[in-house]
Amino acid sequence: MLGLDPGSRTTGFGVLDVTSRGATCVDYGTIRPPLASPLPDRLEFLARGLGELIEHFRPAALVIENAFLGPNVRTLAVIGQVRGALIATGRLAGLEVHEYAPREIKLSVVGTGSASKQQIQYMVRTSLSLPVLPSPFDASDGLAVALCYAHRRRGGVAALLAR
Amino acid sequence: MLGLDPGSRTTGFGVLDVTSRGATCVDYGTIRPPLASPLPDRLEFLARGLGELIEHFRPAALVIENAFLGPNVRTLAVIGQVRGALIATGRLAGLEVHEYAPREIKLSVVGTGSASKQQIQYMVRTSLSLPVLPSPFDASDGLAVALCYAHRRRGGVAALLAR
Repeated sequence: MLGLDPGSRTTGFGVLDVTSRGATCVDYGTIRPPLASPLPDRLEFLARGLGELIEHFRPAALVIENAFLGPNVRTLAVIGQVRGALIATGRLAGLEVHEYAPREIKLSVVGTGSASKQQIQYMVRTSLSLPVLPSPFDASDGLAVALCYAHRRRGGVAALLAR
Repeated sequence: MLGLDPGSRTTGFGVLDVTSRGATCVDYGTIRPPLASPLPDRLEFLARGLGELIEHFRPAALVIENAFLGPNVRTLAVIGQVRGALIATGRLAGLEVHEYAPREIKLSVVGTGSASKQQIQYMVRTSLSLPVLPSPFDASDGLAVALCYAHRRRGGVAALLAR
């Protein structure tokens, strides 16, 4: 499964192999369009980059952070476009798409909805028994998104929240 | 050239043939995803629909209404995703992408930035010498977006505004 932390400058991704025994990290990293390029070009770059990741890793599902809040409407409009380009690419490649709010992801991975990026990074490393802290933060967030879905699927956190 | 009025329920389109002598209407209509389907499915439907239009009409450019304002942030986030899916589809098909704000489009087509949908429809019909009013409004808006670009390219309105 492929987790995405969408951003027009940097989209982080994390690839997990999830079985009944747990989640294993396959790869993580970032897709970074040329900084100076206009938004349509960056959307194209991100869609192509995601297409290559799908081709390479053949995930069954795409898990993506959603966002209905942002520092301002322009940021929100840009991030919406990035999400739309990525989700359409995933769907066109035949993948299921699952979405989680930032708070849900933090709650699932760290145990608190207001976790810092450092805390997420630390817990992602621990949960996946990684030899080093996954970086940059965008990549660690991509893994966290995928991990949130893995937790939910295994029912662990869902059961915990239902208590 | 293909003009788009993006919407998650209905995306209007208008196809114009633009030469030095002016713009001619080739076709117009709407892409309408099944109403009850979740947003990722609608994004896929819209991307596929646009892909088919591009395949059929082979436009050189995609012109799309942008929006950094909306009735609420959720609507803005949804419309952002629709725009992202459409823009990425256009870019991946090798098309130029041009964007105009709603106000610019109304100003260019009707002469006032606060024109109603009826006024746009009327002026689109007149400008393109259509036998009937183009409907629904989404399709008429798609034509208006394309017309705005045609006006700008011909420099008519740009010259007018520069006076």
